[in-house]
Amino acid sequence: MKPQTQLFPHPIVIAHRGASGYLPDHTLEAYALAIEQGADYIEPDLVTTKDGHLIARHEPNLIATTNVAGRPEFADRMRKAKIDGVDEEGFFASDFTLAEIKTLSAVQQFAERDQSLNGRFKVPTFTEIIDLAKRKSYEKHRTIGLYPETKHPTYHRMLGLALEDRLIAALKAAAWHRRDAPIFIQSFEPSSLRYLRERSQVARVQLVMASGVSADGALEFNPPNGRPYDWTVSGEARTFRDLVTPQGLAEIKTYADGVGLWKPLIVSSSTQASGVAAYNEANRTLLPPSQLIDDAHRTGLLVHAWTFRNEQHRLAADYKGNPVNEYLKFFQLGVDGVFSDFADTAVTARAIYQLQQDK
Amino acid sequence: MKPQTQLFPHPIVIAHRGASGYLPDHTLEAYALAIEQGADYIEPDLVTTKDGHLIARHEPNLIATTNVAGRPEFADRMRKAKIDGVDEEGFFASDFTLAEIKTLSAVQQFAERDQSLNGRFKVPTFTEIIDLAKRKSYEKHRTIGLYPETKHPTYHRMLGLALEDRLIAALKAAAWHRRDAPIFIQSFEPSSLRYLRERSQVARVQLVMASGVSADGALEFNPPNGRPYDWTVSGEARTFRDLVTPQGLAEIKTYADGVGLWKPLIVSSSTQASGVAAYNEANRTLLPPSQLIDDAHRTGLLVHAWTFRNEQHRLAADYKGNPVNEYLKFFQLGVDGVFSDFADTAVTARAIYQLQQDK
Repeated sequence: MKPQTQLFPHPIVIAHRGASGYLPDHTLEAYALAIEQGADYIEPDLVTTKDGHLIARHEPNLIATTNVAGRPEFADRMRKAKIDGVDEEGFFASDFTLAEIKTLSAVQQFAERDQSLNGRFKVPTFTEIIDLAKRKSYEKHRTIGLYPETKHPTYHRMLGLALEDRLIAALKAAAWHRRDAPIFIQSFEPSSLRYLRERSQVARVQLVMASGVSADGALEFNPPNGRPYDWTVSGEARTFRDLVTPQGLAEIKTYADGVGLWKPLIVSSSTQASGVAAYNEANRTLLPPSQLIDDAHRTGLLVHAWTFRNEQHRLAADYKGNPVNEYLKFFQLGVDGVFSDFADTAVTARAIYQLQQDK
Repeated sequence: MKPQTQLFPHPIVIAHRGASGYLPDHTLEAYALAIEQGADYIEPDLVTTKDGHLIARHEPNLIATTNVAGRPEFADRMRKAKIDGVDEEGFFASDFTLAEIKTLSAVQQFAERDQSLNGRFKVPTFTEIIDLAKRKSYEKHRTIGLYPETKHPTYHRMLGLALEDRLIAALKAAAWHRRDAPIFIQSFEPSSLRYLRERSQVARVQLVMASGVSADGALEFNPPNGRPYDWTVSGEARTFRDLVTPQGLAEIKTYADGVGLWKPLIVSSSTQASGVAAYNEANRTLLPPSQLIDDAHRTGLLVHAWTFRNEQHRLAADYKGNPVNEYLKFFQLGVDGVFSDFADTAVTARAIYQLQQDK
């Protein structure tokens, strides 16, 4: 049985962390705005609190996306930690109860985006996000799907705060645990998806990234980011590069319904510019696309791509400063969905694409 | 009785010529996209065909917004004409039957916008636009309003193709002719609105523009554009400047429910740049706002402002390249609605404004 694709337009628009281009991300307000903008799915990254609640945050480290650093009563919670082998310093969700988390407020983590609503919105639980999706589905007379990510699953399991059973329980409580639920669960770690596959029928997506792109556009797959962390722990020598070969895709197909690809895996870009201080995609031009979409489709996998963003410095020169052109490029290449910080633009671009296809 | 404002969020988003930032304007496809983007009202400019049908076009002259110039069978229709005292050359709607108009296709008139869908969409009648608004209202479970403009009413009356009775008949046929219909009729010519007031209860909006803005930000009111054309014909010496004084607003209040203001009447901009080849708003900075919104509100008039556009060169330097900032500025000043070529951005900006107001 295929996932629930017939409930939605094609390609789907996934509101990445909510309307995160405009509002502090992973908040009910950012999700509600994305729904107003016409998003099909809203996307929460999930981490666990000390008392075992799933909350929506981009990272276990709350320092960049909340006002925790300015709260004197929590000053003693600041510490160092290793997340997937990388040293970090900050305030970690697993050191806070949900009641404590609920005293924090979200902030916009991208300095170039609006900061006027920092400190105004709470950190939501996953259950609150499910409730919002259901209420808005009713109000809007259309289904709003959820696209949760198990974030750092091995890290959470090592803490005794594993994400997967909690996620399944929350979906079951909402009666969104069957194959045809409007849900995609995503993860970078294959073992998290395999675990979920044994215990739930909902659709699963294997995320794939690279660690970087060289000046000539070649993808780099250096650990830690270039390899799923569960593979590093288990001593697996392969990297994400091996997951996007025809063999790797066939392996993914045994436990997942789709792949969630970092955009450069589909269309990379190269630069002639040298001595550029800050990374600026506008200094880069696109290379011919890879065969990855066709390979994945031939394997029977859906392809969703991330992350689409409107800012000029995030758009390759080919797009002429117009983010619509980037969506059109990926739609023409055949992606089944896009993760976007600006669902309004994605929905508009999809409408234009559909009109172009009506020829 | 007040107009139908309770059906809509505040401030309203009026999709100017449809989603004209993205698609050839004044087409059913552009209106449908604007509705997907969340627009409250769709805006058709109305002109009349030779056989008396109301169609949606920005101007009687079809040369810039259709493919008529490339149609050999119509080559002999090209001629000169005077529109409101201004010499023009092209193809005029009043020289074509509706059947002939229906063989034409729309094109995007802004060179910097997407041209890929030129020649694909038809020129719609006003009745087809009403039908679309009603069908979409049903599908979307929300009311889609109409904001038609009587375009060059004196010119049309002189041709024996007056717009007003045709407009009233079309609204009556749709049962959208009562005071609470989701309609605003707009015009630059007071006599058109006065004529409508005698024959219809639907809400009316007096449009006001200036002929230009000087380098220091002063508004200019030179005829022909600086004065309603019906005033020029009747020998009236006043200009639009006289319509935005407290006395002028009181006069408008006798026949209209609101004013539709060119943005610089609310917030003008000045430039220090000299020798700039093309007009570029990004070279200009904002001046303190006028008192016009408060004056109009004190008179009991709604205030709608036009036209909001996303392109960088249309945004004053103060907005830092982000069109959301311009909407927020006008929302904070108290406008009751915005005409936008990019309803998606306008709807998003309104949501952000509402969140800011929730403080």
